Formats: sequence, structure tokens, C-alpha cells
Amino acid sequence: MFRLIPLKGSIENLENFFCGGVKAGLKEQDYDVGFIYSKKICSVAAIFTENRFKAAPLIDFERRGVTKSNFLLVNSKNANALTGEEGIEDIQTIYRALHKKFEHIHEPIMSSTGVIGVRLPLEKIERAIDGIDLSKRNSLSFARAIMTTDSYPKMVAFEVITDNGSFKIAGVAKGAGMIDPSMATMLAFIVTDASIEDKEMKPLLKECAKTTFNAISVDGDRSTNDTVLLFSDKSSNVYEKEAFRFALERVMHELALMIVRDGEGATKVAAFDITGAKNDLEAQIAAKALSNSLLVKTALFGEDPNWGRIASTIGACGIECYPERLKISFEDVTVYDRGKILFDSQREKAAHNVMKRSEFTIKCDLGVGKGSFRAYGCDLGYDYVKINAEYRT
Amino acid sequence: MFRLIPLKGSIENLENFFCGGVKAGLKEQDYDVGFIYSKKICSVAAIFTENRFKAAPLIDFERRGVTKSNFLLVNSKNANALTGEEGIEDIQTIYRALHKKFEHIHEPIMSSTGVIGVRLPLEKIERAIDGIDLSKRNSLSFARAIMTTDSYPKMVAFEVITDNGSFKIAGVAKGAGMIDPSMATMLAFIVTDASIEDKEMKPLLKECAKTTFNAISVDGDRSTNDTVLLFSDKSSNVYEKEAFRFALERVMHELALMIVRDGEGATKVAAFDITGAKNDLEAQIAAKALSNSLLVKTALFGEDPNWGRIASTIGACGIECYPERLKISFEDVTVYDRGKILFDSQREKAAHNVMKRSEFTIKCDLGVGKGSFRAYGCDLGYDYVKINAEYRT
Repeated sequence: MFRLIPLKGSIENLENFFCGGVKAGLKEQDYDVGFIYSKKICSVAAIFTENRFKAAPLIDFERRGVTKSNFLLVNSKNANALTGEEGIEDIQTIYRALHKKFEHIHEPIMSSTGVIGVRLPLEKIERAIDGIDLSKRNSLSFARAIMTTDSYPKMVAFEVITDNGSFKIAGVAKGAGMIDPSMATMLAFIVTDASIEDKEMKPLLKECAKTTFNAISVDGDRSTNDTVLLFSDKSSNVYEKEAFRFALERVMHELALMIVRDGEGATKVAAFDITGAKNDLEAQIAAKALSNSLLVKTALFGEDPNWGRIASTIGACGIECYPERLKISFEDVTVYDRGKILFDSQREKAAHNVMKRSEFTIKCDLGVGKGSFRAYGCDLGYDYVKINAEYRT
Repeated sequence: MFRLIPLKGSIENLENFFCGGVKAGLKEQDYDVGFIYSKKICSVAAIFTENRFKAAPLIDFERRGVTKSNFLLVNSKNANALTGEEGIEDIQTIYRALHKKFEHIHEPIMSSTGVIGVRLPLEKIERAIDGIDLSKRNSLSFARAIMTTDSYPKMVAFEVITDNGSFKIAGVAKGAGMIDPSMATMLAFIVTDASIEDKEMKPLLKECAKTTFNAISVDGDRSTNDTVLLFSDKSSNVYEKEAFRFALERVMHELALMIVRDGEGATKVAAFDITGAKNDLEAQIAAKALSNSLLVKTALFGEDPNWGRIASTIGACGIECYPERLKISFEDVTVYDRGKILFDSQREKAAHNVMKRSEFTIKCDLGVGKGSFRAYGCDLGYDYVKINAEYRT
């Protein structure tokens, strides 16, 4: 038995953790370099993008084989991607500056997000390091520092009460554009004091990513920098696997939904609930095809219950399906039922009303097998085009 | 030896073929039902969508196993898709009306495009049949009748002069939204008097589709209705395989480019030229990933030479590639060369100038093998959203 208590703020709820943002002048106004510091050395696990062109900080982490650390530095506005060995060397330069300034730092980790193919502005970042105050507990300024086209900071925290005591878990993320089924340009940093075993950290992260960060979609791209990092200082001395798994998935789920809600220009979020697929994989393919379809996304924006586009997208995604077995509903309004078109003017209006909500579920039962998957997607409106056509220049 | 002479108009250039559009009231103003009629019975070959939910006219064609025909009827505004057996029966009703009115009709073929999941308005179409004049030679009104969100009619015709005499080939197509690598909501009807052998027709159509209709992308969907039909009355008594293959590919290529230029809201077309891939299939995957990427499409719209998005998309598409072998150029302006970033302010300006053109090539050499593919894509701007959010309601 366990229960979750939501906490205000995020990382500052954990006794040994400190965090904050500084202004390095990478952004015109806001915080752009953030840090997380732990008094105790933490066990660390990471999952990264599947993009073949991993950014320098990811390569650096993997080359060093980091498993223990107590310091994370994140910058926005520059991805340090496609920068080759020079990009890795820039990170070493930053680590040297960190060690010079702070003697307690053990195996620092760097993370970056922003434009691809431009060298890091080292002077600015080194000046930012001078401005870091390790006694700060300000996850809001940290969350703002890692934002790119995000319109609001994303953070969450829970205390988990179990029969054997309590532990805490907190997370901060950034997302917005380029979010895709495969966890694209998103960063998420999760800290906990649960005494999870080192060897369980990465498998649990992977397992929970499947239904959370890997189930969301803004525009179907996956970036060079996607990262989820989990730090545990184990100071609570409490660990119950089921409770921890539940809490970790909940933290990742909430952050993922914040990301998709904040998709560039998004005005609403749809859950695409596929059931009755041949297997879970085929359900996942269909759910992601729907959440990535431009025609479906623009129909969401127009609040148009255009179920034909939904059916057509399912038919096009290569999975086993038959018109005489397919069923499509907007929440509980069924518009197509195994070969029968139920979409009259009354149901059209009811489905349209469902789509007026900011969050709703589109259900598709394929009637083939027992596979299921739920993916989350946002609509695509004028602002998506505005943000992405004008992003860099 | 052979040469192609472009002809004005389209189908009317072929002696035995007649065509035109009528107004059935499916559209508010314009032609919405079109026909092609041949005095001689033609050999017919077709390729259809890969969507699992094929529309009724496609199922009807396949069930009947049509190989000879002299009449095609096309309606717009209604796809007759996801309409089950009733949709097929509606087509039979239309065929009966056709046979009743015209005694010369042999094995008529129907084709539809428009909204999915609504029964055909039979009365209107039957009234349209009454208005058909088989002596018309008006491919412009036919081309307009098959348009949906197309902003202009698409047609082409050539005379092909060979050492052994000449033949003609002409085509009409519709496209706009939903165009995808796999030939999505597009219809193309091609007629020729070349004496091509029946058994060669379908393989040639398939072969030519690969580099034409299957290489274009507007929004990555593939519809329930995609159709390419080839009619040959063989009246020229001339057939040279190489000349015919060349002319057929040219007709399909020109129609495909007209379709992508007229992508919903498109302002420009980019050719994505992949070379040096492990094999042609991997080149195709990369080229199509680029032509379908929302981030690339919005960068095209913004005339932003954001080569990082191009690299990231290639890295994400699952093919073999390495940053230290990749080369990216906008026409002849190379911005990234096997690990070296050449993108300074001068090249940025030069690449931006390339992107100001209405058509240009983005070249990516992967430096892995000898595979190559060229895909065509259009940009995505505000008007795409406008057209697709407001399409049905």
C-alpha cells in the first residue's frame, strides 16, 4: 500500500538537492543556464534519443560511462549538436571551469538544447558558472533556464508514503516543438531520495518512457538531444519497487502531458486510444500515426469530427485492420461502427462538442486482437507555422 | 531514337478520345463530374493506394478484374470510401444508368475523390449522366471536374516521334492535400494510342510511379482513393518500349510536379536529392523523411537554411549515416561537409537566397554507399492549416 501526495514546486522539496537558473546572455532576457547540485553523490541513469546524430553532451556522457554524479549543467539556445570533437572539447572546457570554481563537484553532466550545428558560446557559459550559487533552491528559475519555445516551465513533485516510510520524487522538463513518439527535443531531469538499486534505475526509466515520453507527439521529429536523467541520492533509506515505479511513471506522465499541452501553438490535446489491435506494437503504430497525422492534427484544430481522416490514417499505417471491424468514437459518441456509418447531423454535433474541449479521447477499436496503446497528440494551428518558420532567422 | 513534342491541352489530342465535365451540383459552382470516352475499346491498367481501406470504386475495379474499357466516370466532393457494400451497390446503380443512356459503353470504370464516409448523392450523379455529351473534347472541363482543393487543373500531352512513326500520350491529374510518398489522394488518368502490349502496361505504370507519384509529398498521408489509370486504344500501331517508357514517366513526372507545386498552401517546391546512401531504399527513406518533416517544411516556408533540422531528420529516420561523412548543400552552397560546419554568415545568406526561389534542390550526400533517390516536397504555411482545419465543416 502506498499513496502519492502532490507537493508544490519541484526539486527544492528534496533535502539534499539545490538548483537554479542564471542569465548568461544566451537568451535576450530570461534564464538560460541552469544547474542541479546534490550534497550527496547520486546514482545516475539516463536514456537518450534514438537519433543517429547524438549531440556532444550525450556522446560525452556515454564515453565517460557516468554512473555517479552530483552536478548537472544545462544550457538552452544551443544544442551543441553536429559539432564533432570540438563540441566534446567545449564540454571538457566547461567541466574544467566547474571544477575550478566548485571543489565539491563530482563527475559533472552537461545537457544542451537549442539550435543545431553552432559551437557553444564558451565565454558566456563560463561567465554563467561564476554566477552559480550552490545554496539556491529555485526550481522555477531552473525550469525557465532550460526552456526553448516552451511557453511555461514544467515541473512536478510528489511525496510517496509507504508502509515502511516515505520518499520523494521530483522532475523538471522542457519540450514544445519537435516532440515526437520517440521522445524528441525534450529534456527531463528527475531527482529522488528513494533508495532504488542502481541496476534497476535504467530499466525502470525505459519502461516508464514507453507510456509517457514516447507516447506523446507534437510534430513527429526526434531530436539530436533528447535526454531523460534520473538522479537518486538514496537519502530516504526507503525503497518499495511498486511504489517507486508508480511514482516515477506518474512524474514522467505529468511532465509528458505538460509537454504535449505546450506543443508549439497547440490549443488542445487528444488521447488516441487504440484497442483491439493484433498486438500492442500494432496498436502503438496506429496511435502514433494518428497523433502524427497532419490531417488529423488540423482537424483537431478546426474541431472538425472528420472521422474519415482517422479511418484513412489507420488504413494507411500498415497494420492489420478491416473496415467491417473498425469502430471509431469521440469519447462516447460513436460515429462509425463496424461497417455502419452512424455519423448523422446529431452525432456530428455531439462529436463536435467533444472536440471543443481542451482535452478529450478519440477511441478506435480495430476488432482484430487484444493489443492496445494510448498516444497523446496536440493540434496544429497557425501558431505552429509561425513559431517554426521564424525560429532561427 | 525518339523525341517528345509537347502538345497544347491534353486528352483531346488523341483522335479516338472524348472527354469533358458536367455540373452535377456536388460543388457549388464548378464542374464536378467528368468523363473520358473512347470510340475504340481500350486496354486498361491501374495502380491503387496501399491504404487498407480502399474506397468502393477501387474494390469494384478489382473485383470485376477490369482489363478492357472505353468509359471512365469521375466525381469529386465524395470519395465513396468506408461506405461498405452499399458503396459498391451505388456504383452498380450508376453503371446501369450509364448503360441505359449510352449503348456504346463497355465495362465502365468509376473513380471518386472527396469526403470519406458519406454515400454518393446518386440522384445528382444520375442527372449529371443525362448531361454528358460523348462528342465533347474538353479536357479542361474534365480536369476541373476532378479537382478538390486543387487551385488549378493539371494536364499534359506529348506526341512522341520515333523512327517507326509517332504515337501520343496525354494525362490529367488532381492532387493537392494528402499527397504523400505513397501516392496519396491523387487521381491521374493517362491515355495513349501507343500499341503497348497489355501485359507491359501495369509493370510500366508501377516502375514509373516510383520516381514520380511516389516521390512527392504534401503532408505524408495516403488516401483511400489514390488511383492511376492508363488507357490505350493502340490506334497508332506504333510501339517502342524505350520511347513509351520515357514518355510515360515524363507525363507522370510533370503531373506529379504540378501536384506538389499545388500542395495545399504551398509557396515553393524542394527536391531532396539523397546520394551516397547504403542503398536506394535507404536513400528513399531519407528523402521521404525530409520531404515529410514538419520542421523542414516550415523552414522551407520561412526560407530559413536551417541545415540542423535537415541533419537531425536524416539522423532520426533510422538509416545508416555518420556526422563525419554527411554533406549538406542548398544547390551548390555547401553548409556542412563531413564534420565541418561551413555555415558562416556569407553562406547563410547564399543559402537563404537559394531558398527564395520557388524551386530548388537540397542535396545530402551520406558518404556511405551508392544509393540515391530524389523526392519532392512543398513547404507548409498558414494556408495549409486554413485549408485543412476548415475543409469539411
